[in-house]
Amino acid sequence: MADLMEKIVSLAKRRGFIFQSSEIYGGINGFWDYGPLGVEMKKKLKDSWWKSVVQMRDNVVGLDTSIVAHPQTWIASGHVSNFSDPMVDCKKCKRRFRDDELVKDEEDPKIRAEKIAAMKCPNCGDGELTAPRLFNLMFKTFVGPMEDASAVAYLRPETCQSIFTQFKNVQITSRQKIPFGIAQIGKSFRNEITPRNFIFRSREFEQMEMEFFVHPNESDKWYEFWIQERFQWFQSLGVKKENLRLRPHRADELAHYAKGCTDVEFKFPWGFAELEGIANRGNYDLTQHLTHSGKDLSYFSEETKEKFVPAVVETSVGVDRTFLTLLCDAYHEDEAPTTEEGENEKRVVLRLSPEVAPIMVALFPLSKKLSEPVHKLEHSLRKHFSTDFDESGSIGKRYRRHDEIGTPFGVTYDFDSEKDQKVTVRHRDTMKQERVAIDQLLRYVSDNVTSDNLKG
Amino acid sequence: MADLMEKIVSLAKRRGFIFQSSEIYGGINGFWDYGPLGVEMKKKLKDSWWKSVVQMRDNVVGLDTSIVAHPQTWIASGHVSNFSDPMVDCKKCKRRFRDDELVKDEEDPKIRAEKIAAMKCPNCGDGELTAPRLFNLMFKTFVGPMEDASAVAYLRPETCQSIFTQFKNVQITSRQKIPFGIAQIGKSFRNEITPRNFIFRSREFEQMEMEFFVHPNESDKWYEFWIQERFQWFQSLGVKKENLRLRPHRADELAHYAKGCTDVEFKFPWGFAELEGIANRGNYDLTQHLTHSGKDLSYFSEETKEKFVPAVVETSVGVDRTFLTLLCDAYHEDEAPTTEEGENEKRVVLRLSPEVAPIMVALFPLSKKLSEPVHKLEHSLRKHFSTDFDESGSIGKRYRRHDEIGTPFGVTYDFDSEKDQKVTVRHRDTMKQERVAIDQLLRYVSDNVTSDNLKG
Repeated sequence: MADLMEKIVSLAKRRGFIFQSSEIYGGINGFWDYGPLGVEMKKKLKDSWWKSVVQMRDNVVGLDTSIVAHPQTWIASGHVSNFSDPMVDCKKCKRRFRDDELVKDEEDPKIRAEKIAAMKCPNCGDGELTAPRLFNLMFKTFVGPMEDASAVAYLRPETCQSIFTQFKNVQITSRQKIPFGIAQIGKSFRNEITPRNFIFRSREFEQMEMEFFVHPNESDKWYEFWIQERFQWFQSLGVKKENLRLRPHRADELAHYAKGCTDVEFKFPWGFAELEGIANRGNYDLTQHLTHSGKDLSYFSEETKEKFVPAVVETSVGVDRTFLTLLCDAYHEDEAPTTEEGENEKRVVLRLSPEVAPIMVALFPLSKKLSEPVHKLEHSLRKHFSTDFDESGSIGKRYRRHDEIGTPFGVTYDFDSEKDQKVTVRHRDTMKQERVAIDQLLRYVSDNVTSDNLKG
Repeated sequence: MADLMEKIVSLAKRRGFIFQSSEIYGGINGFWDYGPLGVEMKKKLKDSWWKSVVQMRDNVVGLDTSIVAHPQTWIASGHVSNFSDPMVDCKKCKRRFRDDELVKDEEDPKIRAEKIAAMKCPNCGDGELTAPRLFNLMFKTFVGPMEDASAVAYLRPETCQSIFTQFKNVQITSRQKIPFGIAQIGKSFRNEITPRNFIFRSREFEQMEMEFFVHPNESDKWYEFWIQERFQWFQSLGVKKENLRLRPHRADELAHYAKGCTDVEFKFPWGFAELEGIANRGNYDLTQHLTHSGKDLSYFSEETKEKFVPAVVETSVGVDRTFLTLLCDAYHEDEAPTTEEGENEKRVVLRLSPEVAPIMVALFPLSKKLSEPVHKLEHSLRKHFSTDFDESGSIGKRYRRHDEIGTPFGVTYDFDSEKDQKVTVRHRDTMKQERVAIDQLLRYVSDNVTSDNLKG
């Protein structure tokens, strides 16, 4: 299974889905760049979330807040005091370690601390180690011309807090009534000590979060509702149900204020891991910001004449984790016929939903002599779909190239096309081929996409 | 004209286009949040750029790189040594000033420095001032557990540098041949000393940049090409030609390596200001990264068997500045009939292109008794357009509400609709009304949008 991960990382780099950030300078640990195919797929994945969570609902609106917010935000949210990992310093060589790097396979931090007290620094060999001290995972910077305590600000470690701080502005301007949600997509940053598993745990990542504000008496109902909605979304993107599961948190995993939390987990090559969290958070967040800002963040119901601080059901999913999920789930190896009659060859195919495939239609002139009409055809499709024009190598080679990046439809224009004004459409998964009239191609692709995967 | 700016800032806040970041904590200078309408409009504006620059062309591909890159990137680009403003400190009260804050209306930095040497601190009144010293405008942070020089990294001040560092990866994986372009949309950060003019100059902003790689002999031709393409784009979004102009830079404004640069300027309420820059940059950028990384960033032409470092034509535009341009250009005040026969009232109308209007169709039941069929109708349109359901207040009030946010089509469902299955469509700009069959409404809106503004 680790093998699958290697194959995916290699395919992602080779075909331009994902590169290491700043590769020519040796890279920078925990940062990744999306290449030409990656950026198309990521855009479609975000559009799908936005459509499902915001556009198709009349009770969820969008928001797009700054990455740097007023630092009080992170004092109120508890991140300044609590968002940290225990770290140990060598008093001699000054090297810093995470405590669980020094003492592996020990869950209890107290026992880890005792064992560390008896150790020497594994880096220089004889330095004494400090006791574990908390290291905050927020990236710090300074806003304005001074570099002092008054100018400290943080890169947000999650997008949701500014949904809470802007709750009132959004509620008033959008004229929404409770229950309603506020959704946002954006970058977050965490100074992870050990980024790992490719884009699964990185230092800069993108989140899609939604806070659904409800009457406290109704939070359980909406919690259940959103668990099902979100679980369904991954399946609508084609992720196989057997690779997904819901895992309710144990009581000892929950924050003190939380009534419940359920993770959507995906079976990654290294095992099941969290993809999304759906949390029944009570009104803790709004109450914290209300207390710290002194501003009234309560809601008044015209119907019941009741004033209350709304409770919140949160859904929080990583763009990059979903991206990795789609790659892992879609990756298949099977066999395909070669140009030699009766011969087969191994093929790699990404069985991506057309909704997220980076290229929807690839167009192949059988010979370079046919380039011109195919260019024309491609341009007429471009308005509606992402397309690619590919004229190099045998048709078989071009199929392999597009199977590997998940292009659902391959369209070949041959010498007969000149006469009958038809092209051969080849389906990625079934490899079935059909002859389709050129003036029906746009409708053919639209219909096939809609009926398969883009319902609703 | 300053008055217009105030009206726009106020409308933007009141209707949920743009809020001050962290407003409940008193705000944070130079940071802004996009509200429910702002996020929809910003998304459409970015989609329009992407469609025009990437999707509709076969010689431009996309990229999406991390905000934090390897710090060598900014040494090679010259930002670590040169991206700075001269600052002056008070030796007594420690307050820091930009030199041109202390000496206004003086272009020559030497004369400014002389005048400052003779001054006392305007803050504490008697502190001596230091000579002006350069202050770097990049936001600095630390990556990893140590806060020392080896861990320093920067938030990118522009998105284009990682297009250069990933040039080779993108060129190889996309199999593009020169001439071709790489485009990216993303956040950038500049620690401006004096953010100003609403979202025009902020500390966190979004850019849409494209680097077009060409043979050095062909750069002038492509420079002219992209100036025209980009100038045209703003007009395609409905910006009035008389509010736009092209301003070629004077020789003394150009960087030493640049062959030419032309700004697209818009007539903002405070005067013409830069919206986009199109630059003929030679091969300076790739050469800098080639030298600093020791990696071969040259290109080999199969046709001419020539190996060369490509020259670059850059187009660089701010998302937020374009957003502000659209608001300023679309803002109009005129008169509209009230419900009283023959009476008029003042109305504010945003004449936004339907391509970027936050809401495309607003649906109004004439009476709350008619809500149900209108909800049904709205849901059938939601898949295709952003919609709003509005049932509160008189129809006139609802028109005003949607004129002010630029909704192109208002659809009223009345008691006759039950019988004839028709609705009244009202056009925002002309205020003309037409009776349209409900089962033709989707097509009617699509056709009207296409013919007016969404050509191509």
